[in-house]
Amino acid sequence: MDYDMENRKTAVRGAQSIVFKDAPHIISAASVTGSKEAEGPLGKLFDMTNENDLFGAQTWEEAESNMQKEACILALGKAHVGAEKVRYLFGGDLLRQGIATSMGVEALQIPMFGLYGACSTSGEALALAGMSAAAGYGDYMLAVTSSHFGSAEKEFRFPLGYASQRPLSAHWTVTGSGAFLVKAADADSQGKTGGNEKGEGGAVKAEKKEADAELEDQSFSHVRIAGVTVGKIVDYGLKDSQNMGACMAPAAMDTIVQNFADLGRTEEDYDRIITGDLGYVGQSILFDLVRGKGYDIRKRHLDCGMTIFDRETQDTHAGGSGCGCAAVTLASLILPKIESGEWKRVLFVPTGALMSTVSFNEGASVPGIAHGIVLEHDGI
Amino acid sequence: MDYDMENRKTAVRGAQSIVFKDAPHIISAASVTGSKEAEGPLGKLFDMTNENDLFGAQTWEEAESNMQKEACILALGKAHVGAEKVRYLFGGDLLRQGIATSMGVEALQIPMFGLYGACSTSGEALALAGMSAAAGYGDYMLAVTSSHFGSAEKEFRFPLGYASQRPLSAHWTVTGSGAFLVKAADADSQGKTGGNEKGEGGAVKAEKKEADAELEDQSFSHVRIAGVTVGKIVDYGLKDSQNMGACMAPAAMDTIVQNFADLGRTEEDYDRIITGDLGYVGQSILFDLVRGKGYDIRKRHLDCGMTIFDRETQDTHAGGSGCGCAAVTLASLILPKIESGEWKRVLFVPTGALMSTVSFNEGASVPGIAHGIVLEHDGI
Repeated sequence: MDYDMENRKTAVRGAQSIVFKDAPHIISAASVTGSKEAEGPLGKLFDMTNENDLFGAQTWEEAESNMQKEACILALGKAHVGAEKVRYLFGGDLLRQGIATSMGVEALQIPMFGLYGACSTSGEALALAGMSAAAGYGDYMLAVTSSHFGSAEKEFRFPLGYASQRPLSAHWTVTGSGAFLVKAADADSQGKTGGNEKGEGGAVKAEKKEADAELEDQSFSHVRIAGVTVGKIVDYGLKDSQNMGACMAPAAMDTIVQNFADLGRTEEDYDRIITGDLGYVGQSILFDLVRGKGYDIRKRHLDCGMTIFDRETQDTHAGGSGCGCAAVTLASLILPKIESGEWKRVLFVPTGALMSTVSFNEGASVPGIAHGIVLEHDGI
Repeated sequence: MDYDMENRKTAVRGAQSIVFKDAPHIISAASVTGSKEAEGPLGKLFDMTNENDLFGAQTWEEAESNMQKEACILALGKAHVGAEKVRYLFGGDLLRQGIATSMGVEALQIPMFGLYGACSTSGEALALAGMSAAAGYGDYMLAVTSSHFGSAEKEFRFPLGYASQRPLSAHWTVTGSGAFLVKAADADSQGKTGGNEKGEGGAVKAEKKEADAELEDQSFSHVRIAGVTVGKIVDYGLKDSQNMGACMAPAAMDTIVQNFADLGRTEEDYDRIITGDLGYVGQSILFDLVRGKGYDIRKRHLDCGMTIFDRETQDTHAGGSGCGCAAVTLASLILPKIESGEWKRVLFVPTGALMSTVSFNEGASVPGIAHGIVLEHDGI
């Protein structure tokens, strides 16, 4: 094991990675999803689902905000930690100006950093939450991301009412939000220091107390964020926004291979290497690109976009995508397997395609970015 | 002085602030602006301006990207630091899906975190760059933000060709980008450790070398990021997106007063308290709100949006705004005054209005957020 370092400085590894000396833990996670996700292979694992995908709202955007809020409240409730104890929140979504996040987390009244990394945002949020907790900037950090099929189609393609056709290489944006509560290694278990001591957000506090009464302790105690590999923008010049798997695969390869190089590892050091939403098209490109670098990850690879929907019965073409895709798969499927020790070490690599309707219409390419998070079972 | 702390943990102050034990320094900054800004009161202070606001591009979006790239290259060149030595980049802009940033910084090939905090993004980027440097995650961090009048009008209001009228409470989005190179206190002065060692970005490197030849050393050696106060979302229920000063003033008040409370200070501990782009309308609201909390900042307040344009001759109504407004004012006016010691301690508080055309059309309110950065002259 390579985590015994004498001082903070040595936490820096290679060109792009950090290995934490005192690794923070993900102590709880929550997943909130729509109806199609509820009918998929992971349906029974999600904490909350909604039949009409509106979550009590009038618009898709407000629905997405509500999902984020619920995911945060659930994650806090599972660990019996109040919002006022969370030092900083790191959140993002796919919508212009990140409104799903700002409207969603407003009620929590946690000091916040808004992020944009397309579908890689869950990795970006976890990286910054882990970095902040490991640096001693607070006991608890919250990371949250979301996407919504209705709001994403409107934002990037056409409103649902147009019933436009989609090519087979297109993804199906996941309606879902995942939230993750990160705790510093040296956190006061009472959460009395380093928290947001103002004790605001009364409504949230009340909701949380109700949740406390209903929920058993569903927190994790064995999942640590061992390190991160921050991604670069990787541009192979592709311009097809309906084939995002191909646009993102080079970035996924770059971050995975960089992680290996920075930490002196190979695919054999990970039980699973899990990408966000490359889908069927992107996966085969990733395998080829990684093989070109001398590694073979085929036996250990899993893609959240290929896991969340059933290919035969759910007709989602290339697979699921969106900020919520990797987040809810992490919360519902991956973290419990690490907690139980079934998987000892996982490289979680959410992937994002950096484009907008404007950049696409102006003929710009669609570069990708991917952030790598090393998740480990404590007993490793 | 209250900076003598024995361990990292005590860097956490009050509900929302961090005071760095080993404060990182801003060692260089660059400002790139459009033609209207060049004609304004700060015109002569900017590093680079462009007559037709296109910066050699065909579209406003690409022009904005070019500004970001130039600002980064200039900031690196001024300090004679290569892009490959920068560990992480923190950047953002106002456009949907942050394309000005992803297209702008792509060529630098620095591992990057995309941010969105509306016009508060320069504060968000500096906070995270400072936090990462102070935590020992690398020797050099780069923070960059931008806005462009042409791309912002298209994004938030109407394309310029429509020649639509603007109310007097409206702001004028600044065409500009500011970049800031942050150096860790214990950084190897050769930048050999903790850098992005891959040495990619050859083109940038070459450009940088040219810049080196032309430029004298224009780096700062006395400006430190002493601490940060991370902002919460503050929502007074206002819905007028053409009066963003009013929407953002409550957030500015909240962060300023929180900074005083967290650090045990008053307005008298700062030579200047500088908001991002409240403008004339927002400033008077801020004064009232702050007075309601028992402080009087009138003599020490400066607003970048009121500073960058001349009210009498430039007809910008409420003043300048945008991610670039606070950033270029910081780079060109504020940092040199701190470097010279004219100002010993400044609280820099960029302010953002969290909205999109979609949230506005759906009737949502426009909440604000503001991040506080404590900047000090080393000799303090």
